[in-house]
Parts: sequence; C-alpha cells; structure tokens
Amino acid sequence: MDNLRGTRVAMVIAKNFEDPEAFEPQRFLEERGATVTVIGVERQSYEGKKGGTLTAQRTFADTRPDDYDALVIPGGGAPEQLRVNDGAIRFTRAFVESGRPVAAICHGPQLLISAKVLDGRTITCVKAVRDDVINAGAHYVDEEVAVDGNLITSRTPADIPAFNEALARALTQAAVPAR
Amino acid sequence: MDNLRGTRVAMVIAKNFEDPEAFEPQRFLEERGATVTVIGVERQSYEGKKGGTLTAQRTFADTRPDDYDALVIPGGGAPEQLRVNDGAIRFTRAFVESGRPVAAICHGPQLLISAKVLDGRTITCVKAVRDDVINAGAHYVDEEVAVDGNLITSRTPADIPAFNEALARALTQAAVPAR
Repeated sequence: MDNLRGTRVAMVIAKNFEDPEAFEPQRFLEERGATVTVIGVERQSYEGKKGGTLTAQRTFADTRPDDYDALVIPGGGAPEQLRVNDGAIRFTRAFVESGRPVAAICHGPQLLISAKVLDGRTITCVKAVRDDVINAGAHYVDEEVAVDGNLITSRTPADIPAFNEALARALTQAAVPAR
Repeated sequence: MDNLRGTRVAMVIAKNFEDPEAFEPQRFLEERGATVTVIGVERQSYEGKKGGTLTAQRTFADTRPDDYDALVIPGGGAPEQLRVNDGAIRFTRAFVESGRPVAAICHGPQLLISAKVLDGRTITCVKAVRDDVINAGAHYVDEEVAVDGNLITSRTPADIPAFNEALARALTQAAVPAR
C-alpha cells in the first residue's frame, strides 16, 4: 500500500470543486504514501459543491511544475475558475508538456482546453463538455478512463476507482524525473 | 410600453438556470406585451441557481420553432443540461437557421456551440466559456452585447439591460414571419 511513497502530486482546485473528485484521489494517493499538495489561485480555503473544504497550500505564483511528479485536476465548477487564470493555464500547459502524468476528471478537461494541449489527444470527460473537447481537437471516447500518453481522463465520480488506478499505474511506471 | 404586443418568445431552461437571466428578460418582454413561453426537456418546474423556480409549459417534443418570433437562452448551469439533449439541439439549430432573433447570455452560448451554429459568427459570452466559442469558430468580442445578424449575446447578469434592449430592437425590426 506504500508503492507511491516519495511521489509528489499537485492537485489544482478552486471554489465549487466536485468534492469526491478531489477527496477520493487525495485519500487514495496518500494511503499509498504519496504527498498531495493542493494548489489554488490564492492561499486560502475553497468550498466544494457539496460543502467540503480544501485549503490551497501553494499558489500558482509560488510553485513550479518541476516540483511534482503528477497533476490531478478535479471537476465540478473549479475548472471554469482556473481556465481564466493565466497562472493556472501556464502551470497546466507546462505540466502536460513535461510528459509527467496529468489526470483530469469530469469538467477537469476544460482546463486542458484553455491550456491548448488537447489537439490530437484521445480523452474522455463529462458529456456536458464533450463538444468542447472535440472542438479543441481531441478525439473523444466514452470510457471510464482514457489513457493517451501522459493524459489520464475520466467522466464522472462513478469512474473515480478506475481513474485512481490509472494514475497509480502511470506514477509507478513513470521514470522519476531528475531534480 | 406595449410595442411587443403579439410577439411570442420562447425561453429554454433547465435546472440551475441563472435566475436573473431568465426572470428579468421575461418581465421586460411581458411588460411590453410579449408572450413568453418557457420550454424544457420535461413539462415540470425547474429550480434556478439562486432558488427561483420556473415551470416549463411546453417541451421540445410538443413545440416547434415556427411558433415563436424569438428565442431566449438564459445562462447558469442550464445550457449544460440542454446541450446534451437532442430535442433542445434541434430546436435551437432550427431557430438560428430560421433567421429569427436568438438571444443567449452568459453560459447560453454553450447551447449554440452544440447546435453547431457559431462558425464565423461574432458573439460574446461569460469569460469561462470564451475559449469554447472560439474553438467552435466564433469571433469572440468582450462587449456588453454583441449583435451579429439574428444572434444577440451578452456576458453576465450586469449586461441584462443592454441584452433586453437589443432583443426588443430585433423584435420590432424583424418582419413577423408568415404563419
């Protein structure tokens, strides 16, 4: 259960994040020994759609993608907040381009659209933003988890177990980047 | 104040509609003599984001675009519900193609994206979906109201007065279609 010990994962949130899509991956990763750092536009507490709260320990201004081995993007209303923030866009684009795993669920791919990293990639997402990922150049598939290179995507909270397992596989397979 | 008497306006809603973007145009239109018919996927009451309720008097299955002189698409979470419904998509596309005024505010243009009617059109919308309308082929402008042919679009509830006035102008200028 500690096969992710020493792994550092960034999770990006904003208000109205979809609670289980943040808390369940966070617990899953921490139970396996990973360290999850919550990142937001401000260093403050954010309330999820269901009333849970998460505190951003770092901001986009005071962290860099190289400090982490993977990026998790929960859904809900948070990606709409993040996709209009330049710091969040730059962080996300650099992360995808680094080749390290990026896992986005539900509305999470909205942030990937605005980071302009979806052209030619195979992904899934919540049905409500399917047309937007297609217009961004992605190949949309309706599966519980889509893995295309370093992009891991899922549709809804029901897919979280498959989402978590795909992320864990990517982290254990990935070469730990030199620092 | 009754210069819209005899005018028939369709308003499409779903749960989590942005309350003022539905209620304020509805009141504005009715005060000027127009009849506003609320249309939903089901003939039921829908709750807005702020707790107001609107009852759909017609469904997409029992109405047709030719029955109305204009279409209003409020924002909030409703367009995400409507854009995945085939009846709503067909109704919206037929309305835009009919040439009669279509007024969408905030997240409303998400429904226009899925109806595939934005290629080459100049519109505005809430900043959070700006990248999606651009990827759908639209020319995005950051103005309180954008009028391009029969498409009338605005950004947020603050733009409602300009949105209403542009819709009223379009309705009084439009030739009433033969029935």
